[in-house]
Amino acid sequence: MSTADLPESMRTSVLAGTKTITMEKRQLPVYGPGEVLVKIAAVGVCGSDVHYFRHGRIGDFVVDAPLVLGHEASGTIAAVGDGVDPSRVGQRVAVEPQRPCGKCRECLAGLYNLCPRMEFYATPPVDGAFAEYAVIQDAFAHAIPDNLSDEAAALLEPLSVAITTMRKAHVEPGNTVLIAGAGPIGIICAQTAKAFGAAEVIVTDLVPERRERALRYGATRAVDPATVDVATAGLDVDAFIDASGAPSAVSAGIQAVRPAGHVVLVGLGNPEMTLPVEHIQNYEISLTGVFRYTNTWPAAIHLASSGLVDLDSLVTGRFGLDQVEEALESDQDPSSLKSLVYPWK
Amino acid sequence: MSTADLPESMRTSVLAGTKTITMEKRQLPVYGPGEVLVKIAAVGVCGSDVHYFRHGRIGDFVVDAPLVLGHEASGTIAAVGDGVDPSRVGQRVAVEPQRPCGKCRECLAGLYNLCPRMEFYATPPVDGAFAEYAVIQDAFAHAIPDNLSDEAAALLEPLSVAITTMRKAHVEPGNTVLIAGAGPIGIICAQTAKAFGAAEVIVTDLVPERRERALRYGATRAVDPATVDVATAGLDVDAFIDASGAPSAVSAGIQAVRPAGHVVLVGLGNPEMTLPVEHIQNYEISLTGVFRYTNTWPAAIHLASSGLVDLDSLVTGRFGLDQVEEALESDQDPSSLKSLVYPWK
Amino acid sequence: MSTADLPESMRTSVLAGTKTITMEKRQLPVYGPGEVLVKIAAVGVCGSDVHYFRHGRIGDFVVDAPLVLGHEASGTIAAVGDGVDPSRVGQRVAVEPQRPCGKCRECLAGLYNLCPRMEFYATPPVDGAFAEYAVIQDAFAHAIPDNLSDEAAALLEPLSVAITTMRKAHVEPGNTVLIAGAGPIGIICAQTAKAFGAAEVIVTDLVPERRERALRYGATRAVDPATVDVATAGLDVDAFIDASGAPSAVSAGIQAVRPAGHVVLVGLGNPEMTLPVEHIQNYEISLTGVFRYTNTWPAAIHLASSGLVDLDSLVTGRFGLDQVEEALESDQDPSSLKSLVYPWK
Amino acid sequence: MSTADLPESMRTSVLAGTKTITMEKRQLPVYGPGEVLVKIAAVGVCGSDVHYFRHGRIGDFVVDAPLVLGHEASGTIAAVGDGVDPSRVGQRVAVEPQRPCGKCRECLAGLYNLCPRMEFYATPPVDGAFAEYAVIQDAFAHAIPDNLSDEAAALLEPLSVAITTMRKAHVEPGNTVLIAGAGPIGIICAQTAKAFGAAEVIVTDLVPERRERALRYGATRAVDPATVDVATAGLDVDAFIDASGAPSAVSAGIQAVRPAGHVVLVGLGNPEMTLPVEHIQNYEISLTGVFRYTNTWPAAIHLASSGLVDLDSLVTGRFGLDQVEEALESDQDPSSLKSLVYPWK
Repeated sequence: MSTADLPESMRTSVLAGTKTITMEKRQLPVYGPGEVLVKIAAVGVCGSDVHYFRHGRIGDFVVDAPLVLGHEASGTIAAVGDGVDPSRVGQRVAVEPQRPCGKCRECLAGLYNLCPRMEFYATPPVDGAFAEYAVIQDAFAHAIPDNLSDEAAALLEPLSVAITTMRKAHVEPGNTVLIAGAGPIGIICAQTAKAFGAAEVIVTDLVPERRERALRYGATRAVDPATVDVATAGLDVDAFIDASGAPSAVSAGIQAVRPAGHVVLVGLGNPEMTLPVEHIQNYEISLTGVFRYTNTWPAAIHLASSGLVDLDSLVTGRFGLDQVEEALESDQDPSSLKSLVYPWK
Repeated sequence: MSTADLPESMRTSVLAGTKTITMEKRQLPVYGPGEVLVKIAAVGVCGSDVHYFRHGRIGDFVVDAPLVLGHEASGTIAAVGDGVDPSRVGQRVAVEPQRPCGKCRECLAGLYNLCPRMEFYATPPVDGAFAEYAVIQDAFAHAIPDNLSDEAAALLEPLSVAITTMRKAHVEPGNTVLIAGAGPIGIICAQTAKAFGAAEVIVTDLVPERRERALRYGATRAVDPATVDVATAGLDVDAFIDASGAPSAVSAGIQAVRPAGHVVLVGLGNPEMTLPVEHIQNYEISLTGVFRYTNTWPAAIHLASSGLVDLDSLVTGRFGLDQVEEALESDQDPSSLKSLVYPWK
Repeated sequence: MSTADLPESMRTSVLAGTKTITMEKRQLPVYGPGEVLVKIAAVGVCGSDVHYFRHGRIGDFVVDAPLVLGHEASGTIAAVGDGVDPSRVGQRVAVEPQRPCGKCRECLAGLYNLCPRMEFYATPPVDGAFAEYAVIQDAFAHAIPDNLSDEAAALLEPLSVAITTMRKAHVEPGNTVLIAGAGPIGIICAQTAKAFGAAEVIVTDLVPERRERALRYGATRAVDPATVDVATAGLDVDAFIDASGAPSAVSAGIQAVRPAGHVVLVGLGNPEMTLPVEHIQNYEISLTGVFRYTNTWPAAIHLASSGLVDLDSLVTGRFGLDQVEEALESDQDPSSLKSLVYPWK
Repeated sequence: MSTADLPESMRTSVLAGTKTITMEKRQLPVYGPGEVLVKIAAVGVCGSDVHYFRHGRIGDFVVDAPLVLGHEASGTIAAVGDGVDPSRVGQRVAVEPQRPCGKCRECLAGLYNLCPRMEFYATPPVDGAFAEYAVIQDAFAHAIPDNLSDEAAALLEPLSVAITTMRKAHVEPGNTVLIAGAGPIGIICAQTAKAFGAAEVIVTDLVPERRERALRYGATRAVDPATVDVATAGLDVDAFIDASGAPSAVSAGIQAVRPAGHVVLVGLGNPEMTLPVEHIQNYEISLTGVFRYTNTWPAAIHLASSGLVDLDSLVTGRFGLDQVEEALESDQDPSSLKSLVYPWK
């Protein structure tokens, strides 16, 4: 496709106000030097999209103008800006949906996810990928192999969260890993923990169906925290990963960690939580959080294309661009796991 | 001194019950193979000694039998067990007051401070050093240079806590370090942060006299948290060290940390604390605690004997073995910083 | 089996001089407090055994008295010393064949493999496991699951070398790893690299049969260094592992490493080698070696019992205790990969 | 100074061919968006400048066109490009003389010194700072405090090499550090090792005057390698830093390192060297090199402005822009340590 073939406008799905999604025709986004224009194939619905839709904000990030949601995206390069290899046009890619400044203290230290001038898809005021086209920097449009579906390519984004989590949790072969919460992130983390060599992956969730699902996706054991006291069951895990955001799960999980073990908080909950500080001190546990990712797509592509992590079968709902509201509401169905939006279908 | 010169019994100061200190004549402790008998010269009073004295417990550690307190000790080797170089008799030493098992998972990983079978001085049911003699493993009786006083040698123990703290806080030259609390640990941490190369050491304390003292011991700036909102003052510190145990100080300090910075909790407070989890997540801050120390005495000896850390002038009270109660109560005097007990004076 | 059932003497195979193996009847070894007596089931033949047999020394380690070879051992606990759980008698175990002192600087830092007072099996003057019984510290007799054969349990020792190598090479999911040499260590490293998540494992070897074998054991690509110039082929690997000891392979491998990548030297070659220092400097490559292992058996047991690493099929020769010389010479047959000695068969 | 005040041309000193320096009038360099124009105050002469002058190449970097040398520079911001805070004009700065691409794998990982598209001052074909003006990216023009001289500000560049070296050598308080070579880098490394807390800094050099100088700049002990066998003297150092490039010094220094210690090669020597690989393996020593630096100027500014590292007194020669050849030849005088060029004097 040459630039001459590009349309002048595109269809977008816009969050116009809390719980209000509208379709808008907009001009094609401008791609500058070092950037590429991606024709979007598939976009995953993330909990943060749902949260913006329902509440209009996440913490300090407030939606005060129309916003295009969606940041888990795959597609095909439709055009390239100055300085980008023109042979990339037509290449299938997974989008790493961040635009760091490249010059600040954090960027120069390789912590570009923490760039204070970050422009991140679907985070106010930056538009996301529930649209026919989107723009990203050349280096963040990652070429994917043929054996990776559009769906899997879109879901490399949550897989990147899971990879970052394993790195921060220092998971290595033979480890025992405890994961709280069997939602999409918990399920992908369970699979990723196995791929990092974990010998045991214990997943906790209050819902029986979700526990059963966890056992199909990497968990070696599923625990009902209503019947097992995770804090005192002697689990002695190397790492605890919270993918629930639930204060009781976080507190219990921390207490299940062995001396010098690791805790990584991925799930979003309240801004403040009551933590078992004495246990953290007496066991010298290291606790941290995950805020997006850096340098994960190559590993994610390997995990997904090799089959070590199964992303395709996580998709439980498929929606067109005019069905975004439906897609955002699909988490009401307890059997739903991951919904995808296809702007061109 | 040959073994023949050793007395059969010794004087000890015993915590017989909450707020009850008694003098007891006891048999000399038995030193086995690989151990040394130390004639105690000086013993620092630690907040944990005071806590056991006043409350009879610290968390899960309960005093339910008479206990000799004191774990910050120096002295001279009076006798050695089988397998120990006999020429060590007469050597001045600083005592690392822990006896790990040497065989468990933690010990074999170099985390001997976290040994589940640890016998630690003055931690029930293991006796400490408020006595004329005490026993320690050969490797934990660290030879000290002549220019180190008995007092300074005893205080290598809290200095070891500070060194561990700096290691865990990843303090390196040019860093900005925030320390909450200008008590003995806070003051030693401030000096140690400077010795690790910190460019700025900001100490917070509510008491003006303590803030002034901090400025004499390594702090480049002293802040009154009642007038400065530490959480929002834009401090952007590389590391925050809590030596206060105060929930408000911990919460504010965490929020003052830059992206990817470190938090180390040294001060003892409540078993649970409400922490700003969202900030930890969004900034990917690493938080951990300090539980004693491993492999710190060589560094501590260097810092103290080179003058990089001044321990001698921290001593504000000197007591005999029959004045241990007085020593334990000396923290009531706000001008008191560190009391030492001299079993032979 | 109770202690009463133990024989007084046992059969051993002894290296009496260079290329001279004799059978000797010896007294059962003494097991002290904290130790266990293991009835040996299977013992792998290592290149170091062969080297001692043929040359009487490895570097500074010289065989100047009769020596029992063999350090890759499995068996059953026949008796326990004081302080060891008596219920361990009868337990199947893999032997970690080292006895560190537990008290030196290295041991206290968790680097017990580097203990200067180490007593290591089959390293002069310490006897090894080509015998009916051998003694080891309680903590170094690792219980194994039922699904692990005696052979596999013995070969957890070279697997431990491979695990240490991967840790030092910082191998993680998605990496490309280059391994020089398709002998037993190279083959086990290739499998272990896959288990650590490597996406590509490139093995080089001059012998076609060995390259083919590598492809059956983890390698994704096998390269003939006589036809491909590894140094300049643009491999851009994350880690290079030398399991050949060949100077040309080491030099070429280092030059194949990407900026900030890792080099781990496992293979034993000359005491000195000419290395491409300029490339190490300009690419800031980290290079180190592996000297045995610490804290690897739990991970090794997981990798072997889960099937991620196949050890059983590596065994190409089986010998009785009176066939040790034959076992040591079996590497003359190019189709041989790993020989095992069974003291009781 | 407003842009209107800028001249159209400037004086430069150019390496026109091997051992041929000429003065040229050139157009002022163009500063683009995100860049600043620096009026150069002082420029240190580095060994690499001398090497290009005498040999026309360093390894693969070949001077095949006229080149402006000089990369240790300080000055004042004379003008700023688009997107740069205009209030920076007039600010005194130290120049970090590298222009990484900001988009490649290395840059995104925080390893911008290893960027394959790097443009580095005075490295063919990129011009350096022996000129009245030079251009650098905004983020690499580091504001300096008033108490830092122009000389010291220029020498933050070699200090950055030393800081990187200490980071890679994992130097921390109490360490013993061995440094081979008492030239400028060795001398700055000795001071920096002290600032990082080293208890002992042993410097080796064949020349008595250089050993004496080392003792004035951080070394606690100076050793003549012609009379002391560094390899076997039992130094047991935590880290060895080679700042000599001499093969015998590198080999001996490596053998002086304790188990699990570190070796960092800073000095440039032959592309290949014969190293004691068996010692590296048996002691599990980590060896790496330093290629420039990342994120060091803030620490360097602290070390220099606090007086922990003395840079001013290292200057032994001062030259005008028309004396660059003389400056490059000044190393012929054994009493010379560091020469600086002042483009405006």
